[in-house]
Formats: sequence, C-alpha cells, structure tokens
Amino acid sequence: MDEFKGVFPAVATPMTPDGKLNDAAFRQMIEFNINAGVDGFWVAGGSGESVLLDDEENNRVAEIASDQNRGRIKNIMHVGAPTTLRAAKMAEHAARAGVEAICCVPPFFYRRPPAEIVEHYRIVGAAADLPLFVYNLPNATGVEITPDLMKRIQDKVPQLTGLKHSSVNFYNVRAFVKMGLFCFIGNSRLMLPALTIGAAGCVDGPPSLAPEIWVEIWQAYQAGDLKRAETAQEQGSALADALFSCGEFHAILKATLAQRLGIDCGTPRPPGQPLTAEQRAALKKIIAEHGLTAH
Amino acid sequence: MDEFKGVFPAVATPMTPDGKLNDAAFRQMIEFNINAGVDGFWVAGGSGESVLLDDEENNRVAEIASDQNRGRIKNIMHVGAPTTLRAAKMAEHAARAGVEAICCVPPFFYRRPPAEIVEHYRIVGAAADLPLFVYNLPNATGVEITPDLMKRIQDKVPQLTGLKHSSVNFYNVRAFVKMGLFCFIGNSRLMLPALTIGAAGCVDGPPSLAPEIWVEIWQAYQAGDLKRAETAQEQGSALADALFSCGEFHAILKATLAQRLGIDCGTPRPPGQPLTAEQRAALKKIIAEHGLTAH
Amino acid sequence: MDEFKGVFPAVATPMTPDGKLNDAAFRQMIEFNINAGVDGFWVAGGSGESVLLDDEENNRVAEIASDQNRGRIKNIMHVGAPTTLRAAKMAEHAARAGVEAICCVPPFFYRRPPAEIVEHYRIVGAAADLPLFVYNLPNATGVEITPDLMKRIQDKVPQLTGLKHSSVNFYNVRAFVKMGLFCFIGNSRLMLPALTIGAAGCVDGPPSLAPEIWVEIWQAYQAGDLKRAETAQEQGSALADALFSCGEFHAILKATLAQRLGIDCGTPRPPGQPLTAEQRAALKKIIAEHGLTAH
Amino acid sequence: MDEFKGVFPAVATPMTPDGKLNDAAFRQMIEFNINAGVDGFWVAGGSGESVLLDDEENNRVAEIASDQNRGRIKNIMHVGAPTTLRAAKMAEHAARAGVEAICCVPPFFYRRPPAEIVEHYRIVGAAADLPLFVYNLPNATGVEITPDLMKRIQDKVPQLTGLKHSSVNFYNVRAFVKMGLFCFIGNSRLMLPALTIGAAGCVDGPPSLAPEIWVEIWQAYQAGDLKRAETAQEQGSALADALFSCGEFHAILKATLAQRLGIDCGTPRPPGQPLTAEQRAALKKIIAEHGLTAH
Repeated sequence: MDEFKGVFPAVATPMTPDGKLNDAAFRQMIEFNINAGVDGFWVAGGSGESVLLDDEENNRVAEIASDQNRGRIKNIMHVGAPTTLRAAKMAEHAARAGVEAICCVPPFFYRRPPAEIVEHYRIVGAAADLPLFVYNLPNATGVEITPDLMKRIQDKVPQLTGLKHSSVNFYNVRAFVKMGLFCFIGNSRLMLPALTIGAAGCVDGPPSLAPEIWVEIWQAYQAGDLKRAETAQEQGSALADALFSCGEFHAILKATLAQRLGIDCGTPRPPGQPLTAEQRAALKKIIAEHGLTAH
Repeated sequence: MDEFKGVFPAVATPMTPDGKLNDAAFRQMIEFNINAGVDGFWVAGGSGESVLLDDEENNRVAEIASDQNRGRIKNIMHVGAPTTLRAAKMAEHAARAGVEAICCVPPFFYRRPPAEIVEHYRIVGAAADLPLFVYNLPNATGVEITPDLMKRIQDKVPQLTGLKHSSVNFYNVRAFVKMGLFCFIGNSRLMLPALTIGAAGCVDGPPSLAPEIWVEIWQAYQAGDLKRAETAQEQGSALADALFSCGEFHAILKATLAQRLGIDCGTPRPPGQPLTAEQRAALKKIIAEHGLTAH
Repeated sequence: MDEFKGVFPAVATPMTPDGKLNDAAFRQMIEFNINAGVDGFWVAGGSGESVLLDDEENNRVAEIASDQNRGRIKNIMHVGAPTTLRAAKMAEHAARAGVEAICCVPPFFYRRPPAEIVEHYRIVGAAADLPLFVYNLPNATGVEITPDLMKRIQDKVPQLTGLKHSSVNFYNVRAFVKMGLFCFIGNSRLMLPALTIGAAGCVDGPPSLAPEIWVEIWQAYQAGDLKRAETAQEQGSALADALFSCGEFHAILKATLAQRLGIDCGTPRPPGQPLTAEQRAALKKIIAEHGLTAH
Repeated sequence: MDEFKGVFPAVATPMTPDGKLNDAAFRQMIEFNINAGVDGFWVAGGSGESVLLDDEENNRVAEIASDQNRGRIKNIMHVGAPTTLRAAKMAEHAARAGVEAICCVPPFFYRRPPAEIVEHYRIVGAAADLPLFVYNLPNATGVEITPDLMKRIQDKVPQLTGLKHSSVNFYNVRAFVKMGLFCFIGNSRLMLPALTIGAAGCVDGPPSLAPEIWVEIWQAYQAGDLKRAETAQEQGSALADALFSCGEFHAILKATLAQRLGIDCGTPRPPGQPLTAEQRAALKKIIAEHGLTAH
C-alpha cells in the first residue's frame, strides 16, 4: 500500500469576488504549498467549505487539484454528503479526475446507527476504489468515530486506509494506529504530540498558510531532533492561536492566504461572513508580527 | 397575524420503489390527515428527510403540498440548507408555490456565531416574506436556539412567527411563548404538558400516523377536559413508544403510513435503511395491537 | 403502601449568623409550610445544602424535622454521601429519628458502574427500611438515573418507592410512573406539565418560599380545573424566574425565606457566598412586586 | 520557587482487610516508588480514593507520607472537600504534617460560579501557605478549569504553582504552561506527548504500579532521546490499557500494587467493589505477561 505520511494541508477553496470557484488562486495555493515541501492535500474538506459547495463545484475542485498536481504529491479529496448516492457519485468522479485518495465525513444531520454509517462508507469506498480516509469531525457531524466503530468500518470496507482525527479524544490516535491505519491529527497545534504516539502526520488548515513551519516539525521529528521539533511546533501553535483569535475560521484562512499569495481568495460563502475592517486590521498586524511575508 | 395553532403533523416524504418522490402517496397522506382534522403540516422537515432531498425535490414537494391543500389547512414548508443562498432560493420558491409559511433549521455542519445565524434567517425570511418558523433541532444541527439567540433573531427578522422546539430544554417553551411566538413542541409525547405552559400545539412525525389521537388531545385541551386530554396523550405516547421501538425513525414512519394508507410509501433514502423482515413483523404486530387499521 | 403525592417543598437548612444549624428558624419554616397545606418535605437535599452538612448536622436535621412534624406530613430525609457506609449510617439514624421516608443521591464524584450504584442503594435502603426515593440529580452527581438503571435498582431494592427527577429528560417521568414509582418532578416550573403525564407531585426549593402557589396548582389539578392550574403554574414560574435572576440558588432561598418568616436564616455555607448589597436590593424589589409578604 | 517536574505517581490509599488505613503497605508503596526514581507523589487524590476518606484519615495519610519521605521527594497532598472550611482545615494540617505542596479539586456537587471557585482556592491556599496545585478533574467535579478560570485563580491566589490536568482538552496544556504553571498531565498514556508541548511531567495512577517505565520516559525525554522515550511511552500505555481492561480503576490499582509489593493493599471502599474471581484471574495473567514481578 502507498504510504500517506507527513504534512497534508487542509486547503481552503479560494473564490472569486462574486463567490465562484477561483481556479487561478486555487492553483497558486497548491504550488505555494508543494514548493514548501508538503506531502499532500486534504481537498474540499472542513477547511475547504466542504458541504457548502455544490456537487459540481466539488467535482471541479477535484479536477483542478489533480491537474495542477501532476502526481507530485497526494491529493485526498473529500466527497462527504448527506446522502450516500451523492457521496458515491462524487467519489466516482474524484477517482476519474485522478486524485490519489478520497476522504469522507460520516453521514450527518440525522444521527445514524452504526450499521448505516458502515454501509455508507462501504458504498462510497467501492465507488472510488481508492484509498479511503474517514473524516472524524464530531463537532460538525455529531458522530464520534470511536475505535470500535472504526473496527466495524474496517471489517466491511477494503479501501479503508486511514483517518483525519479531529476530535478531543486525543488518546484514540494510538488505537487507530494499532489498527494499521494512517492517523492524521486534525489539530495542527498537536502535530508533534500526535507523532510521538504514532500519528502519520497532520491534516489541518493552518499548515496551508505557513507550510514551512509544519514541514520543519515533520523533518525535525523524522531526524529525531526533539528540540528543533518542539521549537517549530511552538512557532506553529503560536501562529495559529494568534491568527484565529481575529475572527471566524474560514474568513481568516482566506484572508491570510490572500496576503501570502498576493491574490484575492474571496470571502466565506454565506452564512459565513467576511472579516470586519477591524478584524482585517488585527489580522494584518499579526501576519506582520509573525513574518508571514508574501512568498 | 394569522394564528398557527393545534396539530401540525411533520409528514414523511413518500417515495416510489426506485427512490423518487411519490406524488400519489404524498397527496393521499395529506388527505388522510386533513380528514382527521389536523390544522396544518410541517412539510419536508426532519420527518420528511429534509436535507436528503435535492433542492428540486424540495420545490416539487412545496408545489404538491400547496396544490393538494387548496387553502384548507396551513402548510409550513421547510427550506433549510447548508448555504444561505440555497435556503433563500427554496424559500422564494415555496412562497410562489403557495405555502402558508416557511420553516428553517439554523445553518448546520459548521458551528456558526450568533451573528451568522441571525443573518441567515434574515435573508431566508426576506426571500419568502411569509410567516417564518425557526426549527430548533440541536440533535441534528448542533446548535441550540436559546431564548437569548431567538431574541436576536426576532430583533432582525420581521417574518419571525414561531418555532418548532425539538430540544430537551422543555422549560424554554415558556420563554418562547413570552416572546409572542407560536411555539410548537417537537415531541408529540409531550403535547399536553407543553400546552399547559403555553405551547401553540404540536409538530412531530407520529401525529401523521394517527392524527385522530392528537386531534383528540387538542380538542379535549381546548374544552378544558383534563382527564380526556390525559387519556388521549397517554394513548399517543404509548403508540409512539411502541412503533419506534421497532427500528429507525424514517423507516417506521414510512412503513406505518403505508399500512394506514394502503399505498406503498417507499423506504428511507440511503444512508437510511429499510426495515428488516423481523422489524417489519414486529411493527405489523404493534400496528394491529393498537388498532391502526387502514383508514 | 403509603401514598406520596402533592407538594413536597425541598427546604433550605437555615443557619445562625455563625454558620451553625438554626433550630428555631428550621421549625418556623416547617410550620409556615405545613400551615400552607404542603404534603411533605424533602429535607437536607439539594436545596438544604446536602453534602455541605456534616453527618452529625444531617442527623440533627432529621431529628428536628421529625420532632416538629409530629406526624402531620411526610418528611423525606436525604442521606446521600460519598461512601456507602456514611449514607447507610445516616439512613439508619433517620429511621430512628422518625422520618417517614429517606432519599439518596447516587454515589457521586467517581463515575460508578451500574452494579455499584445498585449495591449502594441496596445497602442504604436496608439500613433504614423505610420508603426510599432515588434523587436523580445528574447536574450535581454526574450520573443520570435512566429508566433502565432504575429498573435494576427496583429489582434489588425492595424499599424503592419513588424518585425526585431533576434532569432535563422530562419525558422519562412517564417511564418512571409506568414502573409504579411515585415520580416527583424536581423543577417547580414544570409541576403542572409533569402531573399531566403521571407525576406524583413536585419537590423543589421555590415551593418552600410560596407554598400557597404550588398547593393551588395541586388542588386545581386534582379538581380537574385546568385554567386555574395553569394560572397558578404561571404565577409560580414567574416568581421562581424572578427570584433566581437575582443571584445564586441557596443565597436567594435563604434570603427570601428570611423575609417571609421574619427570622434570619443565615447565608450559604462556603464556598457558597452571601448576596451582595446590590443583589439584596434587587431581591427585595421582586419580593415586594410579587406580594410575598411576611406570613 | 521550587521546581516540580517529572514523575509524580498518584498513589492509592492501601487499606487493611477491615477497610482501615494500612500504614505498613502505604510506607512500602512509597519506598518502592522512591527507589524506582520518582520525583514526588500526588497523595490522597483521585487514585487515593480522595473524598471517600474521612478528614481524619486524610490527615493521617499526610502524616505518614511526610514521615516516610523524610524530604527525599515532593509530596503533593490533596485536601479537596465539599466545604471550604473542611478543605482549609486539611490544608492547614497538611502543612503542619510537613508535605511539600497541596492540591485541591474545585468545589464539587453544586455548580459554582467562578467567583466562588476562586474564593475557595484563596482560602485553602492561604491555610497551608504552600505551593498549591489545582486539580482539574471535570469528569468527577463537573467543572472544567479553563485557562480563563485559571487566570482568575492566579490573580487572587499567590500560592498557585501548577495543576494536574485530567481533562480531554489536551491542548490546554500549552495555555497553562504559558501562564508560568507547572502543568502535570493527568493521563499517563499521554506523558510524552504532553512533555513536547511544555508539560512539567505526569501525575497518574499507573506510574505507581510500574514507576520504572515512566521514569524511563522522563529520563529519555530529558536526554532528547526521542525513540527511547516513545518506546517507553508505548510500553506504559500498553500496560495501562491492559491492566484497566480487567475492571474498575481503584480495584485494579490496589490488586496490582499488592502483587508488586507482596503485601495486601485491601479493596476499594464501598460503593467501590472488589474484583470478581474472574477479574482477578485476568489481571494476574496480564501482570505476568507484562513482567510486573514483585519488586
């Protein structure tokens, strides 16, 4: 099996001023991150406004990501949707578009019994027949993928390869690793701690803004250089805390990206709201303080 | 302002064997309930598989409901969606289709700050310019509409008229009533208790299966006949508990409806699963025990 | 079996200015409530600062309550403690002191498996061999007594007679009633709603301050006079909401009681804090507005 | 200020067959752990059955711990209680007994506003005038000590020195460290991850059973030997998971300790229950498999 390890930024979905997908900015974001040494991307997931995209937009995102990548890194494409049919169709399309793997939140809105969650993953996994990552995001989906539930998925879904673990139950990382899964920690402030108990790497939004920091954590960790890894982790955590103290997640993500890339990345799709003038000023100050210059 | 009071069944969305909207069954369900004396419907909401429907299906449901009703009762059409734009478009269409009111869950999946929730309702409310009901369904949406948050909505959304309160915080009924809202209790097992602290009525799935019971609660309550109201409430609660002990909500709802109407109402849209043979047998037994004969 | 029905105020434990048990005020509070027509008391429970009392104080409270009562109403004495031994000793003493029943929170602080909770109740129940009420107070104890857990208690504890249900899961009232238990609702703002689904009555702090209101709810309910019951319930709910908007529960309870009885009832035992001057002024105003004159 | 760093086992409170404090076993447990290289103890805390001990027992424990230690390591004595007065008296006694620091859970059972929690710590801290550690144990106390609340405590309590953080909010470790506090992670399975984000060490029950493993984590970490630290952490986590899969926490803790020390450490105080014969057999097997021979 292919290895999925290291830094996988969860990228935003840049948009144009009129709220459409911004092809050019998307490609530039990809290049910026690949040049900084990332190992892959988590595409159109939580950071990418996921379920706020139409299925057609989701498909187009998969196409651009594959086309721009040309096999250099691993794209893990998100295909979650409220119905199994919609998720499966997007999964099938993602495979045709050429992504390296797919990921999928469990069915959300209605609370589902385990059997329905497992069946959902079985059908979505078969539709793409690519490595499949579960997206454990209970804060958004209302369902915690416990190790027990993951075991039930593993028993029925041959494509299951790993997960993004974005839950407060940090210790579960170890259990998922013991199951043979690539477990990406979903909180970039905890990349180093998670690596020490077996995590495969990190998937989160902040690394897309300063990939050099998380690449440094990963390289220092692999070199066994504990102090260097700790220093980089602290730098990343301080940056993430500072940036996201200025406002809502997606608005900060897009505004900071625009600064680094020098290209407008748009605002959050409503109900998400753009930053206020005051928030923009505070963010600009923090970007400057942390030396996040345009690349 | 129009009054919204009494029994408003939250109806299922009947489907054909191949998973398409079942126009004929939908109309028959409406007639059956109107004949039993209900005051309105909660259409394409939680019981109606809501966010599992495509927007076009949602629009078609609004059209059928209006067309079949011909002004006899009040249709409250659900228009919730992950983006404000999709919800607003469905709201606008629902108004054109002729429904009497709309309802909407708060934006879900991402946790939203109050200002974004309020703005979502403001735009959706304006799009239909019909009486607007908030759908407080924290188990599905992850957000509790507290009286404080509702006050913020009320301050900005002139169409706000009431809510369906499907939360464990039962006592909040009183606070919503004090704000001048029509507060429908979202648990049909608690219709009578809620009426005694000011609720306007009940919106839930079980009344769509045995509307005669909840109409009896409502009539007895209005007549001040406490014992009769309690007897009917106990009958309804016992029935609801028995039916839903057999399996998942939507599967039971559709299977029971099919029995009463004598017309196939389909199965839940996946990831929802149909009843097993064993569950169907158990349900059949309970339907017989409770005398839920075909109407 | 004896019947336990109606209004059972959860009484405060009045104290002297130096923080000792105030015998005289305690007796006066009892008389005031008995004269107003209550059916019993919940003694040294949540409203009575329960686990803040030493075991000797708890014992003394049982003695005073029994002595003052002389069999007129039913005292339900709380004997909960972190260890089974301490709870059982207090239970045994309460029986000797002459109370009519005991009540007990499940073991708290450590989360206990069901078997340990059941065994705790078995030993405590046997120690007093009086009617035993479970005190379901998850907000304080961290454990929800579900109907399933209650069934396990019922199977092993012959003294089990009822419960005070102070949990948000309002609908569980019906399940407890179906088990043959006297279920007292622990939220006095929900007395009437709970009665309509089978509750035996109400146990809460506010009725100790204005017993006449809750006695009115109870009498109107028994007479089948729905409108009168609703009016009294609304009066009680409005009063309780107004009073407790002024500060912390025990401080308000004692300060209001002092006003009605014309006798100092002390302040909460630390870490509880007395009302500030500002809070006292706000409370005084509300007491006057609601006509809670000294009796 | 003194440094508090490294491995601080949260020790059990060994008892005699008739449920009294077992002086000899307690001293042997202390010696065993000091000989293995631990830096201190968390005495009579969660692992030590804390609030199940009488105040006199708690005082006696402080005396034995100090007497046996003779200044070799740092004893952090737990003094939490439902009332401020009881906690303050135990704090005062602990200081006289000669412990190096005290620790205290926030007031529990009743939910307290921040001002009452702060005042509780202020009085308890002043009573001992020793380094004070907050015990953040929301699962037992119902209150989460957030960084914001900790800041309020820090502003008013000059003795505040650190905390044991036993909460799922793992990332808060960093915030507490930034406040200048010694933050001990309360989950021994997460010692190494916590160290990498600034934790001072680990306080938990399992290290009292196999102190050599956690001392190895600490020494390897200090030496910057990442792989050795990870190997030791994995060994500790595997051991802890295996042991506590056999039954309830205190029962396992005491039974395992008895095996290692070769001296009966008693059973949990009721409502805690001893292991069943089946559980004892399973535990024995695991102890053997992990090579936990008598020391």
